Formats: sequence, C-alpha cells, structure tokens
Amino acid sequence: MAPPEALADAPVWSRQVLDEARRRIEPFVHRTPVLTSSTLDERLGARVFFKCENFQKIGAFKIRGATNALRSMDPERRARGVVTHSSGNHAQAVALAARSLGVAAHVVMPRTAPAVKRAAVAGYGAHILPCEPTLAAREETTAAVIEETGAVLVHPYNDAAIIAGQATAAMELVEDVPGLDVVLVPVGGGGLAAGTGLAVSYLSPETRVVGAEPTGADDAFRSFEAGRIVPVATPTTIADGLLATVGTLTFPLLREHLERIVTVTDEQIVAAMRFLWERLKIVVEPSGAVPLAALLTGELDLRGRRVGVILSGGNVDLERLPWTAGG
Amino acid sequence: MAPPEALADAPVWSRQVLDEARRRIEPFVHRTPVLTSSTLDERLGARVFFKCENFQKIGAFKIRGATNALRSMDPERRARGVVTHSSGNHAQAVALAARSLGVAAHVVMPRTAPAVKRAAVAGYGAHILPCEPTLAAREETTAAVIEETGAVLVHPYNDAAIIAGQATAAMELVEDVPGLDVVLVPVGGGGLAAGTGLAVSYLSPETRVVGAEPTGADDAFRSFEAGRIVPVATPTTIADGLLATVGTLTFPLLREHLERIVTVTDEQIVAAMRFLWERLKIVVEPSGAVPLAALLTGELDLRGRRVGVILSGGNVDLERLPWTAGG
Repeated sequence: MAPPEALADAPVWSRQVLDEARRRIEPFVHRTPVLTSSTLDERLGARVFFKCENFQKIGAFKIRGATNALRSMDPERRARGVVTHSSGNHAQAVALAARSLGVAAHVVMPRTAPAVKRAAVAGYGAHILPCEPTLAAREETTAAVIEETGAVLVHPYNDAAIIAGQATAAMELVEDVPGLDVVLVPVGGGGLAAGTGLAVSYLSPETRVVGAEPTGADDAFRSFEAGRIVPVATPTTIADGLLATVGTLTFPLLREHLERIVTVTDEQIVAAMRFLWERLKIVVEPSGAVPLAALLTGELDLRGRRVGVILSGGNVDLERLPWTAGG
Repeated sequence: MAPPEALADAPVWSRQVLDEARRRIEPFVHRTPVLTSSTLDERLGARVFFKCENFQKIGAFKIRGATNALRSMDPERRARGVVTHSSGNHAQAVALAARSLGVAAHVVMPRTAPAVKRAAVAGYGAHILPCEPTLAAREETTAAVIEETGAVLVHPYNDAAIIAGQATAAMELVEDVPGLDVVLVPVGGGGLAAGTGLAVSYLSPETRVVGAEPTGADDAFRSFEAGRIVPVATPTTIADGLLATVGTLTFPLLREHLERIVTVTDEQIVAAMRFLWERLKIVVEPSGAVPLAALLTGELDLRGRRVGVILSGGNVDLERLPWTAGG
C-alpha cells in the first residue's frame, strides 16, 4: 500500500543524504576558511569561529544549495533548463550552477532590480527576464517560461536538495572546529538554518543551534512562538537576504533543531557589519552580520563558550554603504 | 685591528638571523592565511596567492618588525621606554609591542592626524605627543622625549631588527606555497621589501622578487635607476603607507634581492583595491593593493606562473573610501 501523498512527499533526512550532497558539490564549491578575532574574544569572554561563506563562490553560501539541486536532478529533466525568480544571491548561484552543467538558466527579475545585480547574474550567462515589480507579474512571467521551455523551477529554500546543499557549510565548520557549544545562523526562508540544524544534529549533537533574524522580518521568531508559520506582511530590514518567510519544509526543521531565535535591529546589524569590516578586515553583507549582531546583544550567555558563526555572504554595493553619505 | 665603523655597523645577514626573528615573534603575531581568487587566476592566466597581512594584529605586517625590534632589545635599555614618530601602522605596532612587554611607548604625532588614528594608537596604551605638522617640530618633540625619558627610538624601516621581523611574512608565504615563480611586495621605506628579498633569497632562491610602488612616490624606482638613493621632494599618493624614502639599510638589500620595481598610478591602485574588496571580500588599504595593481598592468609577463602577493595591510577609514562621495 502506498503511503499517503503528504508523507510520500516529505523528505526523509539522514546523515547519508547530507554526506551525498557534500560529495556531489565538493568539486564545485570552496571549502571556506574559519577566521577568529582576539579582540572580539576578549570583549565577549568567549571563543568565536567565523565560517566565511562570504569567500564562497558567487560571494555567498547559496552556490552550495543550487549546485546540489541542479546536480541531483534527473539529467533529462535538467536539460530543459532551470528557472528561478530572485534578484539576490540565489539567482547568481542558479546561474553559475547551470553554466557549469551547460544547461540554460532563466532568471525572472523585477525591472527595478539594481543594475549591479542584473550584471552579476548576466555575467554567469543566465537569461534575464525583466518583469514588473509585483508578485503577480513575477509568478506570471515564471509560469510563462516554464510553459514555453519546460524549465524546472529551483526554489531558493523550500526544497530538500537546497537544504541539504546549504547544510554542507555547517558540516565543514563542525569538522574544522570540534567541540563547539553553539552555532549561530541567520534565518531568512530558513534553508541555511534548517541545513545547519540538520548537519549539527548528525555531526555534533552536543552543539546547540540558534537562529538570528532582523526584527523587521521576524517571521521565524513569530512562527516559533505561535507553533505555525506566521508571515510578516511587509518585511523591512537592511538585511535584504532575510526578507523571505520560512517554508513548509524549512519551518519543521527549525522547530526540531534550533534552540531559539534571537532578533536584532537594523542598527545592531550595521554595528556588527562594521565590526567585521573594521576588525576582521572582511567584507560581509548585512544579512551575514545578523548572527554576530545577535551575539553582541549579550542576550545569550556565552562566557567561556566556543561559538560558531556562519557569515552567510559578502555581496554589497560598495558605493552604497550604510555608514557613508551614499549609503 | 677594529674594522672601519661603517662596516662594523652594517648588519650581517644570515638565514639564522631571520629564523631567530621568527621564533622570537611567533607567540605574538598571527600566522596569516593565504587566499586565492579563481576569477583573478582566469583573468591573468596565472595562479596568484595573497598573503593576507591585512588580517595581522593591528591590521598590518608592521607588528612583526616592531615585535622583533622590541623583543631583541637589551631589557635594561628597553625598560626606559620606546619612542617613534608616525601616524600610521608603525605607531600602532610599536604601541602594541610595547604594551605586551609592559614598557612605555611614546608616539609623536602631528596635531593634524585623523582622530581615528590617534584613537587606535591610544587604544594600545601609548602616550601620544601631539606636535605641529612639520618635520622640525616632529624631530624636536622626539628629541625632547628621548632627552627626558631616555626612551629608545624605533625607526619604522631603517633598522636591522625591523627588517628581519618584516621578513617573516614572506618566510611563511614561501613555506605555505612552494614553487612560487615570483613574489610581489609594496615598497615604501623598504623594510618589508628588503625583508621579503632576504627571506626569499634564503628559503626559495629560485623565486624572483619584484617591488611595486606608486608613481607619485617612486623614490625606490628612481633610486634603482640611478644606483643611489634619490628622494622624491613631495611624494603624493593615495597609498599613504608608501610615502617614505628608502633607507641606507634597506636600499642596498633592494638592489641585491629585487629584480625590478614596477610603478602604478593612484587610479590603478584604487581599481586593484576595489577588486580585492569586491571579489575577494577583504578589506585592504591602498598601500596593500599596490602589488596587485602592478600585476594588473600586465607589464610583467606572468602567464602560467605562480605568483605570491603580499597584502600588507587593511587599515582604512570606512567613512572615506576612494569610490564614495565621502572618499
């Protein structure tokens, strides 16, 4: 007897699924370094280890998930091309992963997206489809591409292969830094956070995982409280990579594997970002600075602890920085 | 019979001198990582390895030389305190090296120095002596400190212990990346470049060393041509760490160990700096970007070669960047 459809569709997680994802993507992504700051450690009385996904290909962890999704796809299906609607790091990731497989990538992007983002995606050889900056226009354009080309939609987070790919960052971190007491991870749609939770539960089960989220886009925090997905009507934050609402696949994983979610203001995010630039001398985007901002609030008592922090990405417009006149 | 004084004063270089410097400073400095960029490698058709001294303590290689100079000094002499006149990375380096030894550091600094630089030096516990922004005032104030306190002057580059300390960056680089064809290094007063030349000559003698210098402060280039030290009357460049004139100890080492000096414009320096921020996601100061600028000119034929680049530092005022309105 076949299982009910809902169960049949739910992914079955195992350490093996993550190990396979890791083997699959290894030749196509960087094993990013882990950096530390003695200034920060002194200030916090803790030892903090930064997993630098800002040094990853395309400048963010997203290439891990996109590579796993495209490379685990049936080759005949994949040959029809892939499509996504995003103007952020996921679009660049899908474009690069598709190029390395020689398949077409279509990216639906609002006409209002900054030229620098369009250029980045186009630079990876993707076909850009401009649309009006509305949800309806975006979905209509995406549907039209699928209708015309048969391209496969690659969701940015609510997809088991994407989650498994994003999990590989934390797999490397807990391998490189044994004995972590806690790992902090930013939460947007929840792909990276869910993957981190899974990875830590298999590879370092004594380690706690804590999510960090902007107060202006705190759907995961609210959903955690409510026990069900609670979207934020109009999310607003400088952390533009964390605007999405947690998904039906990611939210249950967050509930299972994250101890809690800490929220931080945009001001705290900018201060954390600036600390990373000034003291660690690395370029991190606002979304990537959110876990450090959570750490700096002092809400988590981490004195004497070993803390892993996933710096998710470093794609920022250098001409528009939050602390300069043009920002 | 005693040798003539000039000979008696000239340092005798050996691999042992550098090995001793390295052992001496090892507990007090970071072994900085080496980063690469596949984008850059594709563009140049070469393999480039960046030695990230921007991640070094105080944000620049200068802590290596200052630590070696202070820790190799006679303890009784050192106990009188140390003094330097600088508003840059050397001042921070002397301040931190002195603090870790528990000796007083006096830093003579023009009243016009940016508050951010004064704060950095004061943050390491040094005693700041403001003076008028003229050479005469600076030397007078320094002489007065020495007269009053007996403090020992620590020259930023024309000092054998400083040169040996700076050499340790290249020692680590050629150890971490065997088989380099060439190492590029910025040239200011020549401490880092001379040390790099020495280190490479002992540890990787097949490797060439090339200096890189701003056209607006090209005293090393001119001195190379003339075969004697030729100062530039009013050096002007965005690379504010490279304004000094090569010294009587550094220049002979540059002549002996550097193959040539390549000069680059401020525009080329800013483009290289921006590449490092945008693509490698690291914060590098203009002086640190000068060797990459030299590489990007294409003047050196490096196709198929393995190239080491010393990124000397990352101390920049984030509110005044060369590509923003405030810059």
